[in-house]
Amino acid sequence: MSRAGGSAPIPLGMVGGGEGAFIGAVHRIAARMDGAFTLVAGALSSDPARAERSAEALGLARSYGDYRQMAEAEAAREDGIKAVSIVTPNHLHVPVAKAFLEAGIHVICDKPLAATQDQASDLAQAVKASRARFFLTHNYCAHPMIREARAVVAEGALGDLRLVQVEYLQGWLSEEVDSKQALWRTDPAQSGAGAVGDIGTHAWQLAAFVTCQTPSHVAADMTSFVPSRRVDDDIRAALRYPSGAKGGLWASQVAIGQEGGLSLRLFGTRAALEWRLTEPEILTVTGADGQAQRLTRARDRSGSSRTPPGHPEGYLEAFANLYLDIARVIGGDLGPLDRLPGIEDGLSGMAFIAAAQRSAAADGAWTEVVT
Amino acid sequence: MSRAGGSAPIPLGMVGGGEGAFIGAVHRIAARMDGAFTLVAGALSSDPARAERSAEALGLARSYGDYRQMAEAEAAREDGIKAVSIVTPNHLHVPVAKAFLEAGIHVICDKPLAATQDQASDLAQAVKASRARFFLTHNYCAHPMIREARAVVAEGALGDLRLVQVEYLQGWLSEEVDSKQALWRTDPAQSGAGAVGDIGTHAWQLAAFVTCQTPSHVAADMTSFVPSRRVDDDIRAALRYPSGAKGGLWASQVAIGQEGGLSLRLFGTRAALEWRLTEPEILTVTGADGQAQRLTRARDRSGSSRTPPGHPEGYLEAFANLYLDIARVIGGDLGPLDRLPGIEDGLSGMAFIAAAQRSAAADGAWTEVVT
Amino acid sequence: MSRAGGSAPIPLGMVGGGEGAFIGAVHRIAARMDGAFTLVAGALSSDPARAERSAEALGLARSYGDYRQMAEAEAAREDGIKAVSIVTPNHLHVPVAKAFLEAGIHVICDKPLAATQDQASDLAQAVKASRARFFLTHNYCAHPMIREARAVVAEGALGDLRLVQVEYLQGWLSEEVDSKQALWRTDPAQSGAGAVGDIGTHAWQLAAFVTCQTPSHVAADMTSFVPSRRVDDDIRAALRYPSGAKGGLWASQVAIGQEGGLSLRLFGTRAALEWRLTEPEILTVTGADGQAQRLTRARDRSGSSRTPPGHPEGYLEAFANLYLDIARVIGGDLGPLDRLPGIEDGLSGMAFIAAAQRSAAADGAWTEVVT
Amino acid sequence: MSRAGGSAPIPLGMVGGGEGAFIGAVHRIAARMDGAFTLVAGALSSDPARAERSAEALGLARSYGDYRQMAEAEAAREDGIKAVSIVTPNHLHVPVAKAFLEAGIHVICDKPLAATQDQASDLAQAVKASRARFFLTHNYCAHPMIREARAVVAEGALGDLRLVQVEYLQGWLSEEVDSKQALWRTDPAQSGAGAVGDIGTHAWQLAAFVTCQTPSHVAADMTSFVPSRRVDDDIRAALRYPSGAKGGLWASQVAIGQEGGLSLRLFGTRAALEWRLTEPEILTVTGADGQAQRLTRARDRSGSSRTPPGHPEGYLEAFANLYLDIARVIGGDLGPLDRLPGIEDGLSGMAFIAAAQRSAAADGAWTEVVT
Repeated sequence: MSRAGGSAPIPLGMVGGGEGAFIGAVHRIAARMDGAFTLVAGALSSDPARAERSAEALGLARSYGDYRQMAEAEAAREDGIKAVSIVTPNHLHVPVAKAFLEAGIHVICDKPLAATQDQASDLAQAVKASRARFFLTHNYCAHPMIREARAVVAEGALGDLRLVQVEYLQGWLSEEVDSKQALWRTDPAQSGAGAVGDIGTHAWQLAAFVTCQTPSHVAADMTSFVPSRRVDDDIRAALRYPSGAKGGLWASQVAIGQEGGLSLRLFGTRAALEWRLTEPEILTVTGADGQAQRLTRARDRSGSSRTPPGHPEGYLEAFANLYLDIARVIGGDLGPLDRLPGIEDGLSGMAFIAAAQRSAAADGAWTEVVT
Repeated sequence: MSRAGGSAPIPLGMVGGGEGAFIGAVHRIAARMDGAFTLVAGALSSDPARAERSAEALGLARSYGDYRQMAEAEAAREDGIKAVSIVTPNHLHVPVAKAFLEAGIHVICDKPLAATQDQASDLAQAVKASRARFFLTHNYCAHPMIREARAVVAEGALGDLRLVQVEYLQGWLSEEVDSKQALWRTDPAQSGAGAVGDIGTHAWQLAAFVTCQTPSHVAADMTSFVPSRRVDDDIRAALRYPSGAKGGLWASQVAIGQEGGLSLRLFGTRAALEWRLTEPEILTVTGADGQAQRLTRARDRSGSSRTPPGHPEGYLEAFANLYLDIARVIGGDLGPLDRLPGIEDGLSGMAFIAAAQRSAAADGAWTEVVT
Repeated sequence: MSRAGGSAPIPLGMVGGGEGAFIGAVHRIAARMDGAFTLVAGALSSDPARAERSAEALGLARSYGDYRQMAEAEAAREDGIKAVSIVTPNHLHVPVAKAFLEAGIHVICDKPLAATQDQASDLAQAVKASRARFFLTHNYCAHPMIREARAVVAEGALGDLRLVQVEYLQGWLSEEVDSKQALWRTDPAQSGAGAVGDIGTHAWQLAAFVTCQTPSHVAADMTSFVPSRRVDDDIRAALRYPSGAKGGLWASQVAIGQEGGLSLRLFGTRAALEWRLTEPEILTVTGADGQAQRLTRARDRSGSSRTPPGHPEGYLEAFANLYLDIARVIGGDLGPLDRLPGIEDGLSGMAFIAAAQRSAAADGAWTEVVT
Repeated sequence: MSRAGGSAPIPLGMVGGGEGAFIGAVHRIAARMDGAFTLVAGALSSDPARAERSAEALGLARSYGDYRQMAEAEAAREDGIKAVSIVTPNHLHVPVAKAFLEAGIHVICDKPLAATQDQASDLAQAVKASRARFFLTHNYCAHPMIREARAVVAEGALGDLRLVQVEYLQGWLSEEVDSKQALWRTDPAQSGAGAVGDIGTHAWQLAAFVTCQTPSHVAADMTSFVPSRRVDDDIRAALRYPSGAKGGLWASQVAIGQEGGLSLRLFGTRAALEWRLTEPEILTVTGADGQAQRLTRARDRSGSSRTPPGHPEGYLEAFANLYLDIARVIGGDLGPLDRLPGIEDGLSGMAFIAAAQRSAAADGAWTEVVT
């Protein structure tokens, strides 16, 4: 099965993602996996020498020292990039995205949307004004069995939703860490928030994607366990949904020993559903009689696989599912749009961060989530 | 290994536990498993005919229609019972326990301690005044690997405790149920509380037993999902410990499909620990490097096994561990006392119920846990 | 639910099972768990002093130095034992069983049936001649989900059986061990066989119980990995069934690190089935589409539980299920007979041992299993 | 982390892998994942129209109707391919490989090596005679935790190896299947063997890779369960190693419901090791005391990851690990050679197939494995 079709790969640019970055390499693999994109240009670092070195190491055709210049130059070229991946620290997402949107270049932006809710509103305006599209890489919602989970919920298999528990537990910031990735994530000026923004928004979006419901209120307790830390490294939020459902969201970077601790549990009036990133190809649906069905990709109806069930696919493949769908949308097939996270997901995530921070500041008072 | 020794079995009585009861049969098996007790007398039901029928079905030597009469009569007999198991609905625990304590008969009482905190204080006085002992059957803390977990924590393997998550999820009350067991549990007059009391106190005690720490404040959201229900069937509480640790407790009777959904997760500064009732003989300890050790009963240092590792033991064996330890204490060996739950655990559980109810009434405000 | 009913417990005797024994204590707990038996007499050791000490430690009413004397004396008493549990080394099973059968006392015998096939035939005659019954404690077939597995197979859910894989892996004899339990098991004169007899027969019986089919031919490779060992400590046998199904049986005592490594996997033309002792309450049934159902005790139709699903039961409860059924049969209810292992299972196990030994001696030639 | 470096991608060709093929697409993704190769030429089908259509769908620069012509033409071009991936049915591996080896083009060949042992010898000669290299895509040995497993074994953590059990269970051929992939695999003229060749050789190679030992003798039982099938669809082989270790290999295409049922279990004198394709990122090492360590990619010392542990990688990433190492070798870095499967693995696999077939024909007689 050829997934990318015979059309020529879409020329892609990248901002951020130079030496020492993590998520830049992930985007590059995801963009390349199905041959749907080809990376030709980049402003890989705000440090020009580093940008140059990184571009050379990657064999990029065109390297820029500045993203504004890049947006302008690429827009002017006949063979210029049609889309750009933004993999900078959070506080740069908005200015970079705006520059490319204004140049008519599609934007594929890493999460969270921005460092502040003000920035986010600003970007929302820019998206509205642009003829280009905006995509946000909440990659977990592109796992085949998450797409299947959404279908299972949508067709009513759980009955009315009552309980939601979503967790994203990591342990890598259990103590002070001075890697490049740790430093910007724990600097409030660059990240805007700690665990709540970096992984809390992933959990928030995942639950919303599968349930097609968003909490209206949160009551949050946020902590900075590592003494010197200036942002939260643990957030525990209670959730209330307009429907009457209740929930919990727990995101932690000090859950020592945890690798890939993302999980979603839903309980309705008829059945329950569970998914864990550590076994991403299994979706468990349990009925009122306690008997569980372990669904595999053989049951995935979204066509999001590259191999038959039993050939483990994971994180990179899910990420590539986003890129493949984005390529289809850019190519004119609007079918995948309803499952691609975009500006609305970003605004919702920023509203969650803000509400959680306000609630925590008010000692956990129930606080409305305002987008 | 003979666990019960050659001494004659201790004569035991039972109040409650007649036809249609669940926990009475569990107590009887637990009491009998190691030959440490022999059940000889009972007031098995408040309905005299039912009491009589049940006693006959069990082949009891002496059946009473009234627990006060039983306490008096048994205390007067030379061969009278030395201990009594109380397996009535919650609101009767205290009057029954007082009657036997006053008669100098040891009390083995099912949890939670009482229907109200006032009753609980009353009982605490009675325990203090009596020469007999009081035990509370929080059975989960008697699983070998929970005893081992406590030892692991006590010796500092986790470092300083940061995060606690304890859950007890059941689904059997997802809709209206009219069995005998469901009816008294959902009647506020008999139970005093819903999920928070019936299984929330188990979760509360389990976390306290393993960590040797008790939260000072809770912020709770309690719900009655089933329309006609007059008690909570779901509680989600945030926890704060005096040490600065944070936690969450989630108990639900509407987590559809869940059977045995009791779990404990701890994260410290050095390592994490996880235990689940569905695999009760496994204790997982994970270090900062993400590598997990799966400990089995071969590592249990508490001597709480009847068979070598690999011969699955479970709920009844853990329950019987309590009875065996109680027999030892009654026999004069005070060694097991520090791991046997008693009046203090009961008071702590009642304080948790009260604080959670107050917090929920105050829309989740942080509320002190006052014993 | 009262399982034992109100009838008085059946007086039980025991031969073997004194100090330092393992399986004797298991039988005693199993016999006692439901109050169906009461242990009153024993010849607990062939060493009279040890027998006396053990009987005293257990509080037995009557201790005998010799099993023949015990059979005679008990048969003569009005209140004598009605059944005897034989938990000696294998080579004594037959003489002891014969003595009690001849005295009209029901026999509950540990497995394997005997040390040699000749002994086994001799016993089969004695069983036929006696008015008493003979039971063999292949305890694993009494797990609720194994009984359910048998029902699932019987109703045709798997279609025609094609593949069987049964394993019993232990590691406790990975090196020389000089415990009492190890010594008789590795002495050919007392055990008659090594891994093939001690645990291979369990695997053989379990597969036969669930499938209701028995292989007609085996091709075996047997090894004594520990240099000084005089019996096999590992056997790997290929199996052929009259129906055309194929299989494998692997039993090992040198599978280092394995605890409870008993598992059964079946594949038919329509579905597959899997059970593992490490999760004894789960039965997995997988269809041709790869989707698995995890069945729990909520689905057990055999009524073999003491607690609701979610309250883990295991090895001792399954063992007690045998005793409870035996009590019912002794009490006149012949319903449980078809699921109770007896002389036929014993003869089949001995035939398997003999065929495997002959095949191994012939360098793995296919060898008929002759009962 | 840039894995591919800045050097230009290596031009790659492909023979086979046109419409309807499975493994061709896998090779293409694997070759592309790290940007190390670029697919520019192909003879994608023996049917010229199909070849043309497939090449167009993939956007190949150059499409050939015949592999001999392709080898010649590409060798003659300055910008011709440096390596070719062979993803045809088995009987074509050898002629195609020879054509490219003779043209001095590196060969990346799917397994098994050939349809017959004669073909295999012929190819071995050609490899020896060529200045180009030959690689065989036994992809499972490139999983990070399999590479780690090999290191664990090599450093002696298991002690002396005693027991090996390797299984590859699939269910997709449980009945007659008429897909393109099924048809050639079940045609003896094209495949040379059934389950033993298609997946048995994977199991054989995996065990050899991790243990660095190869069995000297096999005793096999092979079956064609599906009535019309002309090749084996199930093989069960007992294994004997020169060291005295014993083992079992079980490969099945009729193990209904199985997806990804590849597993390896090793038991030594000191510890045991287990790996399963369904959880490919976990390596379990269990000591004599029964305590298990679950190792993750955090412990992988081979540098075979694209993401940190906790971001699930699987089948495609392992396959890409082969391609990445091959690119390194082609680029002059010979370091990866010792972990890349090649002609020796292929000859060993063919010797296994032949020995198994001879043994099965001799009713399971122990048969030497002769390369």
